[in-house]
Amino acid sequence: MIGEQYLLLPGPTPLPEQIIRAMSRSMINHRGPAFHDLLFEVTAGIRSIYKTQGHVLIYPSSGTGVMEAAVANFIAPGDLVLAISIGVFGDRFASIAKAFGAQVEKISVPWGQSADPQVVKERIDQDKSKRIKAVLLSHNETSTGVVNDIAKIAEALGDHPALFIVDTVSGLAAHPFNMDQWRVDVAASGSQKAFMIPPGLGFLAFNDRALKVHKQINNSRFYWDVSTGLDYLQKGQTPTTPAISLFYGLQEALHMMAQEGLDSIIRRHAFYRDLIRAGVQAIGLELLAQGQAASCSVTSVIAPPEVGANKICTAMLQQFNIVLAGGQQNLQDVIFRIGHLGYVRELDLLAILAALEISLHKLGYPVEFGAGVKVAQQRILEHHDKTSG
Amino acid sequence: MIGEQYLLLPGPTPLPEQIIRAMSRSMINHRGPAFHDLLFEVTAGIRSIYKTQGHVLIYPSSGTGVMEAAVANFIAPGDLVLAISIGVFGDRFASIAKAFGAQVEKISVPWGQSADPQVVKERIDQDKSKRIKAVLLSHNETSTGVVNDIAKIAEALGDHPALFIVDTVSGLAAHPFNMDQWRVDVAASGSQKAFMIPPGLGFLAFNDRALKVHKQINNSRFYWDVSTGLDYLQKGQTPTTPAISLFYGLQEALHMMAQEGLDSIIRRHAFYRDLIRAGVQAIGLELLAQGQAASCSVTSVIAPPEVGANKICTAMLQQFNIVLAGGQQNLQDVIFRIGHLGYVRELDLLAILAALEISLHKLGYPVEFGAGVKVAQQRILEHHDKTSG
Repeated sequence: MIGEQYLLLPGPTPLPEQIIRAMSRSMINHRGPAFHDLLFEVTAGIRSIYKTQGHVLIYPSSGTGVMEAAVANFIAPGDLVLAISIGVFGDRFASIAKAFGAQVEKISVPWGQSADPQVVKERIDQDKSKRIKAVLLSHNETSTGVVNDIAKIAEALGDHPALFIVDTVSGLAAHPFNMDQWRVDVAASGSQKAFMIPPGLGFLAFNDRALKVHKQINNSRFYWDVSTGLDYLQKGQTPTTPAISLFYGLQEALHMMAQEGLDSIIRRHAFYRDLIRAGVQAIGLELLAQGQAASCSVTSVIAPPEVGANKICTAMLQQFNIVLAGGQQNLQDVIFRIGHLGYVRELDLLAILAALEISLHKLGYPVEFGAGVKVAQQRILEHHDKTSG
Repeated sequence: MIGEQYLLLPGPTPLPEQIIRAMSRSMINHRGPAFHDLLFEVTAGIRSIYKTQGHVLIYPSSGTGVMEAAVANFIAPGDLVLAISIGVFGDRFASIAKAFGAQVEKISVPWGQSADPQVVKERIDQDKSKRIKAVLLSHNETSTGVVNDIAKIAEALGDHPALFIVDTVSGLAAHPFNMDQWRVDVAASGSQKAFMIPPGLGFLAFNDRALKVHKQINNSRFYWDVSTGLDYLQKGQTPTTPAISLFYGLQEALHMMAQEGLDSIIRRHAFYRDLIRAGVQAIGLELLAQGQAASCSVTSVIAPPEVGANKICTAMLQQFNIVLAGGQQNLQDVIFRIGHLGYVRELDLLAILAALEISLHKLGYPVEFGAGVKVAQQRILEHHDKTSG
């Protein structure tokens, strides 16, 4: 029996049963007291996950929507923007800034690597006349499974006045993110990643420094306008009709996350990363990202060239109903990606490694059965000893 | 016992049990074959409801989002735009156009009335040099409960080349809407109205004439860009992560709507309008909208000035857990609004009228108990006779 689908994408992620139940409640008046309380509760929850005392607005949108919100609110047409791209989503951020009239200077990093703080520092140091108005950066680059060191990049920016705008759609709550401490001015995230709820909510966080810039500049914005959003938030409302069922899911997700504890959640994701990487390597496959650059949300595995990544994804789907992600653009058929963020159990990862061994074997790639699983078992054992110790 | 809440807003509307169940399914890969099929099915469904052979794109957004999409895609900065406003949402459409750089000329109609085709015709006839690039109009104005005669306005536009862009967020599927026949070029709608699903999906429809304009002009757009949307749709995908759970709900809603039949649905809404209006008048209250201008989605009732609309809404909520909408802006405390779109039964409307009689009585307004209910009962009886005949 092939049974239910195992979704191991870097978003959307599997949904916990209790979140599904929470989302099954009836609609309420989005201009009434029940929504008011719900909105305040989840806004405070998101704020605590961002580790910010700043502002948080929740939009009916995908993650890309709040990236657009970050641009439309905090960048003016003609502004010089430094976009540091390490993959598809870094490129997307740059494209949005261009679409909204910014003069975009891109630092493109080879795919599979993280941004080099030294390179950023050099460019920033050159900008004596402070022409750069904003720096755009992905926290976790979903397309490559690479995480940027936000703290180090922030350090590289020093006291340059450019706004530091971070896309942490697939990064937040799977990696440490200390918005205020790291002096991130604007951050964008979404519901379908570590929050374990369906896609459809975007979370925009920003501080007073960004808000001051917002008030001084203009760009084409109505739907994303943070001034309107903040005005409505004061009344416990949103400017346009909110995606109420997803708010129910978010409320439940935040309860679950509070119970597990943010530090534990982040440790768990790091453990998943280590476990999957060790298992995959023991199978004999190579990893795209190295060392500290490896994402805790998603692991990119280089497929044996004689097999190709697409065949592996197809085999995993057909034989085990496991959904992995392929590579995008020039990594198409080169890598496959195992998502391990949100509601994923150790058990799922053991099963994946075992299934991967079988699929590779069937595709004619030499595999010692149990090689990857064994290493993962060992890691789990150590982890259990450590966490119960 | 006060029991469950009766939601009679002009959106969000009550959800049918089977839609709630449909939305409770697990997440799927939004880049895989199952979503491909789902997207094609619901896109075709929405197209049939719009009565268009043109294009339909579905966004993760509220209704206002697709109004912004209509502006960002089809209006260029500097374009002269004629915005015909009959209430809050007409004003909003004009504001979005302004925010995206259009030169907006507004025709403001007194609240409670519909747009006069003759006034539109005169303005259009004056425009010998065809400077007007787009005409913006609300189909159903949610804030006042007034419906515009789209066919007549289209006639007034004649062969003027301006794009005719209609916000039918709360109009579609509750009123006749023949997009192609009426030569509407762009139309915007959303999920939380007659579609009976939660808020969070926006539906943008547009024809090839609009698409041609889109390709010739530029504005600040990325998230809403219809070119990108159409490219992805060809592959059975959306440019950014879709709100999957709401797609499940939409699929189920479209099944239900196909079963009932679009013509029956529209007749049902017209019947609800007539029933509520007759009932409310029999109670002795006045209606804001007159004759053909009265909406089939929502009825605005003028509260007795000595009582005030807010007190009536509060009484209905506290005593019966019935949620009605108040008036907005200068209709605040003047009117209350009874939503009757989507998943509403005759039974609900009988209950509302009976509860309204009690609430008014308690507030000291003289009411003959049963006066409104009696008229509604009679209407239902006639309707049953007619539909079974």
